[in-house]
Amino acid sequence: MYKGIAASPGYAAERAFVLKEQALSIPQETITADQVELEKQKVRDGLEQVKQELAVTREDVRERFGEEECAIFDSHLMMLEDPTLLEEIDREILDSAKNAVWAAHDVLTTHASVFEAMDDAYLRERAADFKDLRGKLARRLLGVGDVSLETLDRPVILVAHDLTPSQTARLNPKWVKGILTEIGGPTSHSAILARTLQIPAVVGCGPIACEITDDTILALNGNTGEITIHPEQELVDLYHREQLAFQEEQTRLRAAAFETVYTADGKRIEIAGNIGNPADSRSVLANGGDGVGLFRSEFLFLEREQMPSEEEQFEAYAEAAREMAGRPVIIRTMDIGGDKQLPYLPMEAEENPFLGFRAIRLCLAEKEMFLTQLRAILRASSHGKIRVMFPMIATEEELLEAKSMLAQAKEQLRERQLPFDEKIETGIMIEVPSAAIIADQLAPHVDFFSIGSNDLIQYTFAADRMNQKVSYLYNPVHPAILRLIGRVVQDAHAHGKWVGVCGEMAGDPLYAKELIALGVDELSMTPSLIPRMKQAIKGMSTTTLIYQ
Amino acid sequence: MYKGIAASPGYAAERAFVLKEQALSIPQETITADQVELEKQKVRDGLEQVKQELAVTREDVRERFGEEECAIFDSHLMMLEDPTLLEEIDREILDSAKNAVWAAHDVLTTHASVFEAMDDAYLRERAADFKDLRGKLARRLLGVGDVSLETLDRPVILVAHDLTPSQTARLNPKWVKGILTEIGGPTSHSAILARTLQIPAVVGCGPIACEITDDTILALNGNTGEITIHPEQELVDLYHREQLAFQEEQTRLRAAAFETVYTADGKRIEIAGNIGNPADSRSVLANGGDGVGLFRSEFLFLEREQMPSEEEQFEAYAEAAREMAGRPVIIRTMDIGGDKQLPYLPMEAEENPFLGFRAIRLCLAEKEMFLTQLRAILRASSHGKIRVMFPMIATEEELLEAKSMLAQAKEQLRERQLPFDEKIETGIMIEVPSAAIIADQLAPHVDFFSIGSNDLIQYTFAADRMNQKVSYLYNPVHPAILRLIGRVVQDAHAHGKWVGVCGEMAGDPLYAKELIALGVDELSMTPSLIPRMKQAIKGMSTTTLIYQ
Repeated sequence: MYKGIAASPGYAAERAFVLKEQALSIPQETITADQVELEKQKVRDGLEQVKQELAVTREDVRERFGEEECAIFDSHLMMLEDPTLLEEIDREILDSAKNAVWAAHDVLTTHASVFEAMDDAYLRERAADFKDLRGKLARRLLGVGDVSLETLDRPVILVAHDLTPSQTARLNPKWVKGILTEIGGPTSHSAILARTLQIPAVVGCGPIACEITDDTILALNGNTGEITIHPEQELVDLYHREQLAFQEEQTRLRAAAFETVYTADGKRIEIAGNIGNPADSRSVLANGGDGVGLFRSEFLFLEREQMPSEEEQFEAYAEAAREMAGRPVIIRTMDIGGDKQLPYLPMEAEENPFLGFRAIRLCLAEKEMFLTQLRAILRASSHGKIRVMFPMIATEEELLEAKSMLAQAKEQLRERQLPFDEKIETGIMIEVPSAAIIADQLAPHVDFFSIGSNDLIQYTFAADRMNQKVSYLYNPVHPAILRLIGRVVQDAHAHGKWVGVCGEMAGDPLYAKELIALGVDELSMTPSLIPRMKQAIKGMSTTTLIYQ
Repeated sequence: MYKGIAASPGYAAERAFVLKEQALSIPQETITADQVELEKQKVRDGLEQVKQELAVTREDVRERFGEEECAIFDSHLMMLEDPTLLEEIDREILDSAKNAVWAAHDVLTTHASVFEAMDDAYLRERAADFKDLRGKLARRLLGVGDVSLETLDRPVILVAHDLTPSQTARLNPKWVKGILTEIGGPTSHSAILARTLQIPAVVGCGPIACEITDDTILALNGNTGEITIHPEQELVDLYHREQLAFQEEQTRLRAAAFETVYTADGKRIEIAGNIGNPADSRSVLANGGDGVGLFRSEFLFLEREQMPSEEEQFEAYAEAAREMAGRPVIIRTMDIGGDKQLPYLPMEAEENPFLGFRAIRLCLAEKEMFLTQLRAILRASSHGKIRVMFPMIATEEELLEAKSMLAQAKEQLRERQLPFDEKIETGIMIEVPSAAIIADQLAPHVDFFSIGSNDLIQYTFAADRMNQKVSYLYNPVHPAILRLIGRVVQDAHAHGKWVGVCGEMAGDPLYAKELIALGVDELSMTPSLIPRMKQAIKGMSTTTLIYQ
């Protein structure tokens, strides 16, 4: 038996189908000066073909699963349409005398590696998107066909080293009953798509494909990550029954996800989604989310040559507001710094980046950059229900300074006679222990708190959650954490303010039960987790503490 | 007017005396194989001469200031007698064909640079000790005389790029009324000696010596770090009056420092000293300390080729216990890891060492190393009043595991029929926020808490205190910190346990006033700060909170 990462729930027991990747060989031959224009044109043609290909896949997905599932392809199209991408490739062709496919490959590899080095699981998985596009473009430029899965005519468990989002999106759930990959994590676009397609999936199994041929029977448990090679007939039958029951339950859950949910003792709980770009908001809607609880705005700042303009930011925030059609969208001002670097904002290397100059600390020093973002957020607030949230607040002084800059941004818009929501709701992340301890002093200055449990836990235990040697200390239901959260909720409610949680613990029903009992009013999570959480909330109560 | 770092309090206004350093030129000529033995012998002779020189200085200091002030020279002698030092120099001579002075210079430079890279101000200043020895040895080997200050026959303010501890110790306070250096920090041995000699000193002034000649009149304020070049006569007179008043006050303070102190409302407060090696305990006694509140045992582990043996550690702990003659000595088990690396214990580099695998986390994994230290501490407990303290405790589980290892060490000593204090008092550092928050759950398992305010503040604000860009968040009297400390004291007292503070805030009377009002029972600080604190305590009350 093997164990991987459970990436999409459900059960499958079928024969394997091993996907053999055709390795792409990138020709590393330099070009002469008179070939430059030709190679540039090749890149343009290749990009155009990839865009058409993506548009076809997008249309296919839209027909099969609806508009809401197209977000990934929109974001891929957006990446390809970014003019700086083409500029960078052109420069590689001209300055380094690289041929079209080589130049494009290197530029997209650089983009991918920037994301791969990040400490945020969500952003790290964006590297796969760049690699997907890199492969697509190279295949077009080299005239090599894509790996086809369209010849399948029997139920299989698909076994691959890795799957690109495009490959995953074009899978036919009629025949592909399960997915097993050697690498990848639970927040990759492929894993997200597998959940959308409702195909059970286990990822990151390590080198396993070599032990499996197309005749091997596999049993795959997408809830636990367990893989059994050559299972007993008994297990095969059990998995088939379990999968049937699971599918019926899922259908019921999805249907129910669009309802407003209440705990067993009658308290309304808002279940919202965490997003990284405006297109993701469709996924929140598709899963029945009551709003966006966390829009990580730093996504707009990363992987660019220059600061996004006020106009560009405004467009992105306004798009999310319009998509959500009146449902609230909480935009967190940028959390840059530490290990998330921007090429256009030089920052010094730090000994302890998690304890360093990041988020609001950086924004309060880079006033023009911060004011530009605040104006963009404010302007978007006339296109829907926008809330603004400051990250990493540690003291009352920082909060007052951030609010005074918000007031300044409002004044600037009034001068420019641009409309915005004068009463825009303003909140802060509670993720630094000091903020949790003085929540009573902060509450009068805000409309809401959102607890960033990932950072709060890491700082409270003084244990880097990315460092495996101290990960044993990362315990969301330790009394120290629950006491802090309970205290924050009490202080907020005493001032008539509400409290959400947007860290990873908010998406797990076991932990959520505890949060609800502590009085938390809103939970925000990866969109795909919303339906299950909405169902689970109905069985929870505001009074039943498990841990203490 | 210039501003440096106030290193020794008091006032001086005199003509300058500029110390001109004779630059040492190290001959970088390689030797032949037949010269190896000769060069090795030269190193031995040189070391012997330096030892004799140190012994003379030590005797001189003992006669003038008493046995208590000799600790620095004992620690220098200890460094020179370390057999690994000679081995390393021999190896440089043999393997790299370096001549005696070159080899010795390089080895001592390596030792100095290890300490220079550390994040602990106390340990970083130890680099100056190695450089002092390096200069002494080179001068002996090259036959160059030391810079002499013995020809002075008039009152001066001594101006130098830097002063070695030996130079400082041989200064005659009859003529040297003030010290001004371009580099150095307040915790260097030179600064400590200046305080002992009661010579006002300002260090780290930057390049200033070039503006000053032996005729320049200077006014120096050792309380604020202010330097005035060519002062008005009015300021000169003021400084002379202030210095007289200051000296009278000091005499009174020192005499009173040996008393037990009580707050104005009658609570006994223990005032203890922080030390890094057993010799430092004499400085605690000389300043009237009631005990050692923090023995940083990692000092014994650093800058060595192999782990110190149980015997070696036992000797060091027992020496401190005997020196303190029945007064308590709290030995903190080693706080290694993060940026304090040991050559004989390979550790992986970490992204955020302050949130990493260090102190008790490392000790619970390196069980043999930890058991060896615990046995050494236990054995020393039969030579005086030893207490044991675990650093970086974050959870109850860690504390119980550390205590179970202490029980195991006791059992091993019983088997070896070695004596120890069966009821050795056991405490923990409160420096991780989670420990402060669950102090009520930890209190039943300990005899005392000692609050490590430096780390507690840094973690509570998620701000690296060594990172200047976020140092604005390092506020010891922020409500978040005072609430945590108040909570710890309440929880401890409810269980009949006492609470000390051993971070930097414990040594500052302004902060101490707040700690006493919060109910803290013991304060431990740099030994030289003890007399002033003992005086200040008498004016404090257990009920007057300034901040809240």
